Parts: sequence; C-alpha cells; structure tokens
Amino acid sequence: MASKETISEFLKSEFPQTECVVDVVGEQYAIVRQAIGFDELRPGGTVSGPTLMAVADVALYVAILGEIGLVSLAVTTNLSINFLRKPAPDKDIIGECKLLKCGKSLIIGEVSLYSDGDKEPVAHVVGTYSIPLSKKS
Amino acid sequence: MASKETISEFLKSEFPQTECVVDVVGEQYAIVRQAIGFDELRPGGTVSGPTLMAVADVALYVAILGEIGLVSLAVTTNLSINFLRKPAPDKDIIGECKLLKCGKSLIIGEVSLYSDGDKEPVAHVVGTYSIPLSKKS
Amino acid sequence: MASKETISEFLKSEFPQTECVVDVVGEQYAIVRQAIGFDELRPGGTVSGPTLMAVADVALYVAILGEIGLVSLAVTTNLSINFLRKPAPDKDIIGECKLLKCGKSLIIGEVSLYSDGDKEPVAHVVGTYSIPLSKKS
Amino acid sequence: MASKETISEFLKSEFPQTECVVDVVGEQYAIVRQAIGFDELRPGGTVSGPTLMAVADVALYVAILGEIGLVSLAVTTNLSINFLRKPAPDKDIIGECKLLKCGKSLIIGEVSLYSDGDKEPVAHVVGTYSIPLSKKS
Repeated sequence: MASKETISEFLKSEFPQTECVVDVVGEQYAIVRQAIGFDELRPGGTVSGPTLMAVADVALYVAILGEIGLVSLAVTTNLSINFLRKPAPDKDIIGECKLLKCGKSLIIGEVSLYSDGDKEPVAHVVGTYSIPLSKKS
Repeated sequence: MASKETISEFLKSEFPQTECVVDVVGEQYAIVRQAIGFDELRPGGTVSGPTLMAVADVALYVAILGEIGLVSLAVTTNLSINFLRKPAPDKDIIGECKLLKCGKSLIIGEVSLYSDGDKEPVAHVVGTYSIPLSKKS
Repeated sequence: MASKETISEFLKSEFPQTECVVDVVGEQYAIVRQAIGFDELRPGGTVSGPTLMAVADVALYVAILGEIGLVSLAVTTNLSINFLRKPAPDKDIIGECKLLKCGKSLIIGEVSLYSDGDKEPVAHVVGTYSIPLSKKS
Repeated sequence: MASKETISEFLKSEFPQTECVVDVVGEQYAIVRQAIGFDELRPGGTVSGPTLMAVADVALYVAILGEIGLVSLAVTTNLSINFLRKPAPDKDIIGECKLLKCGKSLIIGEVSLYSDGDKEPVAHVVGTYSIPLSKKS
C-alpha cells in the first residue's frame, strides 16, 4: 500500500490546484482535510457545494491511490452528493472515505463530509472512478 | 416570469463568487455560460469536476428563479453528475437546464453541460432544490 | 443495428421475467412499455418504485442492444431515479431512453418514464451499464 | 419510538405487497430481510435489481417509521443504487439502513444490501423520503 507521504507528494505534483491535505490513508480508507477561506464560502456563510464535492473527490482518489498505487489516469465517472446540514464557515472540511468496491475497472466509494469537530456530517457523497486497465495491478 | 436581466443582477448580488453569465431564461429552462481559465483546469487540460458541478448548479438555480421569482433561500439538496467526455480546455462551458418537476417544496431539473460549439455533452447532471415554503408563490 | 424484432426475441429468451414490450429501437434510443396490474401497484393506487426502475432498466438495455448488438453480459452498475409525479394506476408505463455516452466499457443513458398518454414524466432515471470488453464491437 | 412489532403490523396493512420482514428497528436505524425465490431471480442466478431496490426502499421506510412514528404518506423522492457484487441466488437479501439526516420535510438515509451471511455488500443505496409536514412530530 502506498504511504501517506508518498500519496501526499503525488497529489501535489499531479493536482497542484487542490488545497486538500491528506490526514490518513488506511485499508480502503482515507481522510483528507481542506481549510476554508473566503473563496470557498457562499453568501450566508456556507461552504460552497463545489468545494464539498472537490474534497469528496480528493478523498476518494486518495483512498484509491492507497489501494492500487499511484495511478494518474483514474477518472471520476459519477458523483452523487446529498447536502445534509449547513457547514460551519470557520472550520476545515474533513472528508472521510470508505471504498465500497474495488473492481478491475471500476472503484466505488462513499465519503462523509464534516465540519472539523462536528459529529453530524454536512454532506454525503457516493462516487465511481474508472481505472485504466493496464494500470491496475 | 423574471427576466434575464433581473436574474443576472440578482445573481451578481446574491452570488458574487460565481463567474457564470446568464445566456437564456425560458419556460422552465435556462442556459448559462462560464469562461474557462487556469483556475478551472486540471493537469491534462481538463476542466475540473467541481467547475462543471458549479455551472450545473447555477443553471438549475437560474431556471428556478425564472420559474418562481427571486428566491434567495432555495438550497440544493441533491446533485448527481455523470462525466461523459473530456471538456475542451479553451472553450466556455455551457450549461443547459430543463426543469423536470416544479413542486411546492422540491424542484428537480436536469442539466446538460457542453464545451461551447460541441454537440456532444461533456457531463450530465440531475439536481434537486428545496424551496422555502413561504417564498414559493 | 439490431432490429426491434431481433431484440424482442433476445429479451424474451434472456429475461423471461420481464413483462416489458419493445415499442421502438432507434439511434441510441429506445421506447419500451409495460402493462400495469395488481402486482405493480401499491396502496393508494400508485405504480411501485421498483416497477418504474425495472422499466427504466429494460429501456436502457434495449437501447444498448440496439447500439452494440446482442450482448447478454452487460450489467447495470448504477441507477439513480427521481420520482416526479404519481403514475396512473390504469395506464401502461412507457420508458423512453436516450443514450448519453457509448464508451468502450461504460454506457450511460437517461430514461423518462410516463403513464401512457400523459405528457409530464412520472419519473426520471439515469443509469450506467458496464459492457464486457470482449463483447463490444 | 415505534416498536418493531408495531411497525411490522403497520407495514403489513399499508404495504401488503412487500415480502420484507423487519429484523431490527433502532436509533435512526433498521434492518429488514427478504427471502429470495424464482420471482426475484434473473437468468444467471442473480437477484434482480428491482428486488434489491425494493428491499432498500423498505429498509429506509422502516427506519423512518422508527424515527417519526407511523406515517403512511411519506414518499420516496430519490433513490440512487450502486450494484457492487453478484448476490447469492439462495440467500435472503438483508437491508441495513442508517439515516443520515432527519429534517422537517426531507429524510435521507443510506442502505447497505447483503446476501445473508456475507460480509461484503452486494449493493449500496442512498435514498430521500419526503415527509408530509402535518405528520412530522
């Protein structure tokens, strides 16, 4: 399994735009974190939906990298998000991903998103990644 | 029905972060457009998933404003996106929304996303907005 | 492209349980129809959700067979349904499918479901099929 | 909280078509079970998708009844299912539901579906119910 450090460096070089930090990489599991500033907020003091989706997408990707190694060509094919509660404007968003299925060509996982320190999730995501066949070990 | 100009001004004041421009507001229908620059791209020259989601979300919101008037408290409850083709890195993203149901408390619509000038959609979104009861005419 | 008759026979032999009838097979397009009786109803005179899903699934499958030929190993990987209006208890359910993407390994389509004769859809479905690689032409 | 026995009787009278049995009702939680016979199978010895969806729908409904009491007018508005593994043709299907959000008008939950005795889920569902306002305590 790729380590947290290896995956963090890979993420930085492959996705320089992401501001997510890798907290944990485990068995078909990952936790990532993103700081929230003005750019991520919407009027009313809510974290924007696209920010939540972006954190979920990175959480899924990190869990997949932990499972199958450093694959740059994996692409998201489907992402479904339910918004559950208003996120806090002044707390990091935490994305906790559990993979549900690791198939040869498709990997499916769910992500619960939290405002750091809160127990109740602000959103729940299920996403599917397509894995290029030659890259899957 | 609220006009394109009224909705454009409302959008600018309520969502100063959005870079989407309203192209068309019709009967349970809207087209919006977003210019693509470095911030919206991912390595490999693809428009990022969160950018596509954001355009779809605004397209839905504009179609809803056109249908029920200027409601600032409508919130997205669910958004499901399928990524279909690689978007062009140097073309605007166009979001074309058709509402599927306008209920008293829930409005559901679908959005096809295109790279400007291409016939085949790059992504397809279905989303649900929850409408505050007192605001729905 | 496989004809309506060929696909109807294939469907009968491969899926003897389905009660759907093929009405139209077109370019990345299909219409199927299912008669509604006591078994498909729920108290209150509504067509059951699983019945609607089953019709959508067959509509997708028929559109796929029309596109890539008679493939028995295609499987649904994801199906998302929004229930829009109460279906009529005494009318056929019509499923109209348009394929959104025909990839090498994934085919994605949307299905609008109607009570026969009504203009407004009772439900909207987006689904993904996984195609076995060796079978795709 | 409504008891398992009360909910079982309510289910029998309100949904005589369902063959699901209630195993557990807990805090925003429920487990239901359905026996699998010829009617639920598809060629190849797989449990049909609509059967899995039906079990998930009942699991959600039972968890909701446990949370808000016996409400017959709650309706499913959205259901999204990912098929993960081939279910066993000769084992009950178990649906385990956890509610993610209990709002005033919308309740959202996730359901993991298993072939009885297997650890790995055969499918994963996220669904939304709309609750009539007057009925919500």
